[in-house]
Amino acid sequence: MLSKKLYDLAKRRGIFWGSFEIYGGFSGFYDYGPIGALLKDNIISVWKDYYVNREGLALIDTPNISPEDVFRASGHLKEFTDYISYCKTCKTAFRVDELLKEKVPDFVIKSNEDIITGIEKFNIKCTVCGGELTKPEKFNLMFETKVGPGNFKPGYLRPETAQGIFVNFNNIYRYFREELPFGVAQIGKGFRNEIAPRQGLIRQREFNMAEVELFFDPKNKRWKNFENIKDLKVRIISKNEQDLIESLKEGVENKIISSEAIAYFIGLTHLFLIEIGIPANKIRFRQHTDAELAHYAIDCWDCEIESSYGWVECVGIADRGTYDLTQHELESGEDLKVTIRYESPITKNIKKYKPIEKVLGPIFKDKAKLIAKEIENHKVTEEKDLKVQVNGEEIVVPKEAYTIIEKIEKISSEKIVPNVIEPSYGIDRILYSLLENSYYEREESEFHVLRLVPKIAPINVSVFPLMPKDGLDIEAQKIHNMLVNNHFKAYYDDSGSIGKRYARADEIGIPFNITIDYQTLSDQTVTLRERDSTKQVRLNISDILVNLRKLIDGTLKIEVL
Amino acid sequence: MLSKKLYDLAKRRGIFWGSFEIYGGFSGFYDYGPIGALLKDNIISVWKDYYVNREGLALIDTPNISPEDVFRASGHLKEFTDYISYCKTCKTAFRVDELLKEKVPDFVIKSNEDIITGIEKFNIKCTVCGGELTKPEKFNLMFETKVGPGNFKPGYLRPETAQGIFVNFNNIYRYFREELPFGVAQIGKGFRNEIAPRQGLIRQREFNMAEVELFFDPKNKRWKNFENIKDLKVRIISKNEQDLIESLKEGVENKIISSEAIAYFIGLTHLFLIEIGIPANKIRFRQHTDAELAHYAIDCWDCEIESSYGWVECVGIADRGTYDLTQHELESGEDLKVTIRYESPITKNIKKYKPIEKVLGPIFKDKAKLIAKEIENHKVTEEKDLKVQVNGEEIVVPKEAYTIIEKIEKISSEKIVPNVIEPSYGIDRILYSLLENSYYEREESEFHVLRLVPKIAPINVSVFPLMPKDGLDIEAQKIHNMLVNNHFKAYYDDSGSIGKRYARADEIGIPFNITIDYQTLSDQTVTLRERDSTKQVRLNISDILVNLRKLIDGTLKIEVL
Repeated sequence: MLSKKLYDLAKRRGIFWGSFEIYGGFSGFYDYGPIGALLKDNIISVWKDYYVNREGLALIDTPNISPEDVFRASGHLKEFTDYISYCKTCKTAFRVDELLKEKVPDFVIKSNEDIITGIEKFNIKCTVCGGELTKPEKFNLMFETKVGPGNFKPGYLRPETAQGIFVNFNNIYRYFREELPFGVAQIGKGFRNEIAPRQGLIRQREFNMAEVELFFDPKNKRWKNFENIKDLKVRIISKNEQDLIESLKEGVENKIISSEAIAYFIGLTHLFLIEIGIPANKIRFRQHTDAELAHYAIDCWDCEIESSYGWVECVGIADRGTYDLTQHELESGEDLKVTIRYESPITKNIKKYKPIEKVLGPIFKDKAKLIAKEIENHKVTEEKDLKVQVNGEEIVVPKEAYTIIEKIEKISSEKIVPNVIEPSYGIDRILYSLLENSYYEREESEFHVLRLVPKIAPINVSVFPLMPKDGLDIEAQKIHNMLVNNHFKAYYDDSGSIGKRYARADEIGIPFNITIDYQTLSDQTVTLRERDSTKQVRLNISDILVNLRKLIDGTLKIEVL
Repeated sequence: MLSKKLYDLAKRRGIFWGSFEIYGGFSGFYDYGPIGALLKDNIISVWKDYYVNREGLALIDTPNISPEDVFRASGHLKEFTDYISYCKTCKTAFRVDELLKEKVPDFVIKSNEDIITGIEKFNIKCTVCGGELTKPEKFNLMFETKVGPGNFKPGYLRPETAQGIFVNFNNIYRYFREELPFGVAQIGKGFRNEIAPRQGLIRQREFNMAEVELFFDPKNKRWKNFENIKDLKVRIISKNEQDLIESLKEGVENKIISSEAIAYFIGLTHLFLIEIGIPANKIRFRQHTDAELAHYAIDCWDCEIESSYGWVECVGIADRGTYDLTQHELESGEDLKVTIRYESPITKNIKKYKPIEKVLGPIFKDKAKLIAKEIENHKVTEEKDLKVQVNGEEIVVPKEAYTIIEKIEKISSEKIVPNVIEPSYGIDRILYSLLENSYYEREESEFHVLRLVPKIAPINVSVFPLMPKDGLDIEAQKIHNMLVNNHFKAYYDDSGSIGKRYARADEIGIPFNITIDYQTLSDQTVTLRERDSTKQVRLNISDILVNLRKLIDGTLKIEVL
């Protein structure tokens, strides 16, 4: 199996491995080794160039530990749950929906009720010891901790980085000088206390995310650069499953994609994934069906990448409506609205109460004036009785004491809660999918290759002396030092045959190899080999830096050297 | 106060602010805003270039949540504590050592006993309500959580990134093809459940670290590049407080600094801090006194940077001996030793037991042969009776049945536990110190400037149209797009006077400003202004990219343009 081969290679060559091995492992946690950590960095670095630099988003960095209020507002405290059953005999814990899917593949789970009753209905037993299972109960997937001593506050490890952006809405709105639309990015860890994590790097308890929250006027969900990519064609599976689109623009015009903004970030995601090396035919965008869609969401697309795990969701692009900011307004009591100025003022019919003072006076005496003022300011409601508050006292105003008048008012702005569009990237899943889609075995050899694009490859170039003697090693070290001092990631290797060293370099995806041989000592040239074509050219030492830079950024091809 | 001014600026201009403001704040947690997050990224990026790229260390990335075994081994479970007292009336919690320092500044705390008895001795009361305080008790500063459901495992948020490296020693030793010395770096979050955090960015409950663990043969604590910086002079306060050194080399030769390796990383830290813009006169290295030194440590230096908080420890460089790996060997039962091959074999006098078979035979009959073998393999001890195990049975061998012989053996290698040297950087403290040391107020104006070096400045260049009209804005947008498409961090601003825009750019440390004016439309030149000198030059649009790149990496100065 491809995934088995890849996990072996990953462990052996320092890409990733299960955490805390010497203590028997820790389920759901992985380490990135020296090669994997650089690969992750490179993916994130291209992502930042796309989102922060070129789209002009604000990058922020907020804590992993967050107070309870945040997740009461977001709904995670109540809703971020899976159903769990325990074996009554051996106490093993099972995630009920996954157990049902495994045992009764044909059963389509449509509701929580199906999950709760499924265990009994299909008479499912413990897969470890055959024992009886407990009735399914909700299990919250947030990690909880205590912040501070004594009367501590509960804290939770964030299940997503998004909430750290929403709670900062006002700060960042000010940073953007109070103009919509704008976007905020955050890259960091997310945590999810999985009941029984099993899918390796794809489903971890601690994972790397890169999230974006874009804030729009709900009436104008467009993004400035849409024109640049409107003709891009992407593979979609819309909710009616029949739609094909020739371009993003067509998707918007045919109302398959709900807004230009959603279409833009579908396109950007597609371009990003291709740039880091995911083959286009392994990428598709699947729209959530109405049943899948969260109750507040307007539209949602999963970007799925194909690997040996099947089509796996790696990015989600959702139009979340005004849900997030509304929830935080309700919970915090802070105003998270913005003022939208109209291009030209609009007129509006306004209904108002008008007090009739000659009726009020005899009834309310010295309070009449105050009551009249309250009546004027009172919003016209459908309710039968008009009640006003005066000095803390509620007063019912008789019908004879007021009338309702209509007025035409000019309005030049309104306060609204911005609409949120969220592209959310799972970095570990993208990295894993990239590795699988880069892995191949050379026909003529037993060795594996990672065909990583040069700008993503963890190490740019390896440097080999043909032999570690006769001054070849000294010359090679010099070239290695020149490379690292010019910010290249270079790797020196002088052990074993050149063939073996090429193979070792190919396994961790090093795209270029420089070999120093006896000719180097006489004419100051080296051999440059390219990984995929295995083509070799001779190059002057003085040309290495400039050519290598171009080879890596793609402006030069080995074929023309 | 400088720190007050800086916190105001930081909040106003998106550098950093207290987290979760809309929920009333969360003590000990800070957010980096759009400018701060980029600044942090840039500092980390130079750090990686120093340690990972140029020193050739392995970068790894391990989880924040770690199992209990790890911290039982490291000692954190027992020892990572502060003393706490609560007010009996208002329940406020106090960190006792800090309360004592505040209330009795002259009292020198020498031991835990001093902390425990100090409250009563000096009759210290609650600073909030004057109430009586409880007897000090230990409070563990690790955040605890539960991993998995049911019979959960306790998990802890790591108080340092180091342990994730130690537990991976064998994996990374293999990655380096089993040769000492080598080094491993990790950049990530650390967590510390402070009792009463008060010093802003300097003492947070969640903070950014960059740590390095270097593994040495204890007999050879040298680092390959020491020759390059041996003549560097750094400011030190050694444990006897009198020492001055003219160079790192002198420090090692005079045995003030305990090894070349420690001296090398003191030097590298000095160079790194200067490169990111900390003034040399604000950096010093203070050696731990024997009383401060952990019981297992051989030598330790704090790199302190001066700011309005005083001299604050920002980096620690410690020789931790063999403590860390030994502890994890004991706790995990795994072999974390390495084989050191001698350059030439050494000879050693070995004492061995030799069984006398003619005595053993009559006593032990058919077991005699097995017993003879056990005697041969038994280590010579000081104990009186020789006891061997045969088939699970303990047998006492009489003195007459063996002799002790001496043999000379050739030994070509030995197994040792590597010695650890740890440079550990507090990124938030470095960032804060850098901001304070970059902040100044221009004489002739009310505005503030952050004098950040160009390679560290969050935004490389701002682009201003003189007016947002007459096509100047279109030309400016074009230049802005050219910059971001070439990976510069550029910032477009068209509101307010040019003077105001310069001032706004200066406040967030943008080193270069490009202005597009009416002349631009006729001759394709722009104005380039440098922040500190405020010098302005005219530049062809076609020269912007190449010149800007050189200005940022320091190979070109504005004076010669």
